[in-house]
Amino acid sequence: MITYQQCEALDRADPLAALRDLFHQPEGDRIYLDANSVGAMPKAAPERLLQVMRQGWSHDRRRSWSTGEWLSAPTRHGDRIAPLIGAAAGEVLVCDSTSVNLFKLLAAALKLRHGRPVILSEAGNFPTDLYVAQGLRDFLGHDCELHLVPEDDDPADHLKEDTAILSMSLVDYRTSRRHDMARLTAAAHQAGALALWDLSHAAGVIPVDLNAAGADFAVGCTYKYLCGGPGAPAFLYVAQRHQRAVQPVLSGWMGHAAQFDFATEYTPAPDIRRQLCGTPPVLANAVLETALDIWSTVAPQAVYDKHASLSRLMVDLLGQRCPDVNLASPHGHARRGGHISISHAGGAALVEALAQHGVICSHRAPDSIRFGLGPLTLRHVDIWDAVGRLKDVLADGTWSDIDPGLGV
Amino acid sequence: MITYQQCEALDRADPLAALRDLFHQPEGDRIYLDANSVGAMPKAAPERLLQVMRQGWSHDRRRSWSTGEWLSAPTRHGDRIAPLIGAAAGEVLVCDSTSVNLFKLLAAALKLRHGRPVILSEAGNFPTDLYVAQGLRDFLGHDCELHLVPEDDDPADHLKEDTAILSMSLVDYRTSRRHDMARLTAAAHQAGALALWDLSHAAGVIPVDLNAAGADFAVGCTYKYLCGGPGAPAFLYVAQRHQRAVQPVLSGWMGHAAQFDFATEYTPAPDIRRQLCGTPPVLANAVLETALDIWSTVAPQAVYDKHASLSRLMVDLLGQRCPDVNLASPHGHARRGGHISISHAGGAALVEALAQHGVICSHRAPDSIRFGLGPLTLRHVDIWDAVGRLKDVLADGTWSDIDPGLGV
Repeated sequence: MITYQQCEALDRADPLAALRDLFHQPEGDRIYLDANSVGAMPKAAPERLLQVMRQGWSHDRRRSWSTGEWLSAPTRHGDRIAPLIGAAAGEVLVCDSTSVNLFKLLAAALKLRHGRPVILSEAGNFPTDLYVAQGLRDFLGHDCELHLVPEDDDPADHLKEDTAILSMSLVDYRTSRRHDMARLTAAAHQAGALALWDLSHAAGVIPVDLNAAGADFAVGCTYKYLCGGPGAPAFLYVAQRHQRAVQPVLSGWMGHAAQFDFATEYTPAPDIRRQLCGTPPVLANAVLETALDIWSTVAPQAVYDKHASLSRLMVDLLGQRCPDVNLASPHGHARRGGHISISHAGGAALVEALAQHGVICSHRAPDSIRFGLGPLTLRHVDIWDAVGRLKDVLADGTWSDIDPGLGV
Repeated sequence: MITYQQCEALDRADPLAALRDLFHQPEGDRIYLDANSVGAMPKAAPERLLQVMRQGWSHDRRRSWSTGEWLSAPTRHGDRIAPLIGAAAGEVLVCDSTSVNLFKLLAAALKLRHGRPVILSEAGNFPTDLYVAQGLRDFLGHDCELHLVPEDDDPADHLKEDTAILSMSLVDYRTSRRHDMARLTAAAHQAGALALWDLSHAAGVIPVDLNAAGADFAVGCTYKYLCGGPGAPAFLYVAQRHQRAVQPVLSGWMGHAAQFDFATEYTPAPDIRRQLCGTPPVLANAVLETALDIWSTVAPQAVYDKHASLSRLMVDLLGQRCPDVNLASPHGHARRGGHISISHAGGAALVEALAQHGVICSHRAPDSIRFGLGPLTLRHVDIWDAVGRLKDVLADGTWSDIDPGLGV
């Protein structure tokens, strides 16, 4: 039997405990278990943003571009995300949305593997990953096909000689099931295909080693565990060996080798910057930087250890205090991603009832209730309290009367 | 001879004079003539942003999505830009960058005019407009060609039976020369082609009437005259008649008819929202909204009249006080866009010297010096003072020793 005192002891021994104070603490006794949707806000973010607005925007105006700081944010931020995902400096770029970056890299894969028309993904992939592939397929016609692996099949069994790329999410957005990136990447390469990984539910919580796995491409968002803010720009990864081989499909001026020469002909930058397209989102990049300032002070392994400890505690406490609840996530932390899911018919109404009891989590159709565990801010006692409130709400039973709104 | 007193009189009679107070006034006696690069900052922007960060992001976290306000910003903001560019409600969307939006619409044009492979543009178009078309051409191979009209030719003479779309900037980013949108759009239609207009140097300063011209598509940025902030999201316009005919190439989850059903199959939204792709940039949209709050209180014609008055004054004062300076922009306001350009070999160094004398303008290679006239904030006396300082700097002659940095 786990006790509250044991949770307190875990928090006292937590080497990352002080990080919590670097994030804005909202009033009340709320417990945020939605870092899988929107992560916590760094305390430094508002002041930094005001500084950029007053000095950079309002006072310096267009001259701010000349210092180069606004222009270098995509690579500067990328280089600080790189250690969290096993990438080298110069392999990660912060720009656009995850969906737009997916399009860039799926298109690149079809070029690099010309003559192989198939994008292989899985039926349970996050919808936008599938939609972007469908849009590319419909645009290209017979030069592109999308094949979906049924949910319980091994994707490796579906790699064929016409597969250009295996496009997978490392972590399932509903169940949190984690794929074996190294094995599937090797299988893709064995079949002559490339491998792309969507790291949205993995970056900043579980160990990701793109270089060790030999991954070709990756994308991910920064607004979840990375705490970059709602709608923050996404990241993309292109392995060093592919960077100069890929002519970007979205070839905008920010990806030009000399964008301020204003030449008529597009010449791609000689490195990953060729994957930039339009003007960088200056204010959003300033906010994200305050989160990366924090990330750059922590050892990635310490974050993964803390997250593993929180995750195991949550699973154990669910079993101990809510034994009727069905765990939808795999047993064993090594098989899970950033969140813990239970399957429960209560859906969005139950999630809203929990919110009214100060536990913020999220719902995904048809029956996933997800608890996203942000390791920079959560304490073990928060997990204790959250499970206790879940137990109370389930026992009370009035949650089914609640209107969840859009419930997203 | 124009006098300072006459400039003061024009300001006293200016019906938009009070708008200046709605924008943040930086310290000193600076005069910002760079609204063609980065517009002024609404005073309300910092406080609004702090509110969204503290309440929406930090306190409400993922529940903010459920209210729908973050999700509706792209159409809500688009509907408020629409009157400035002669579009109807439901025809404008705020999302992504100008470059990404160009890609979406050029790709759409090639589908709508299947069998016509040519994108027709002009050699002097803004580079990213050309680069995006080149990327699409190189991606598609023989299904797409890019033909460029030489700078002094009439684009109408180059429309052929294989032209899918005429892709033009309404206003030249260097000289400010304005095209005749209605004539060229009619010529494109006459040839069986579509017409796309980049309004970046036009929206919010000169009369634009997309509907009257029968334009098919348009794009533009919001960070110049519209004052949306550095790197603010861009806009796109799709004429109502095309909206359901265009299957989006960048088919992300935000463009799905029911994005929170998380269906495996992409079904495009029945309206312009199908052109959305990834998660909207929440903080940037909140900032832009403070500018649109101001725009929605002013009659577009009053803005155009004020801008015409400022522009004519600038040209007249240049002739009167700096007679050796060559006007690079056309004579006659109806043939110009948002800025006034002079051609001068001083380039970036002269622009930096002017900045040191409190006049912020911009340079574009090889010899354009641009003065962007933001009608919401500039006074006629500012134009008087700016031209006076230009005269002094030119007379002093020491500007050539100045290091302009990146000079962008």
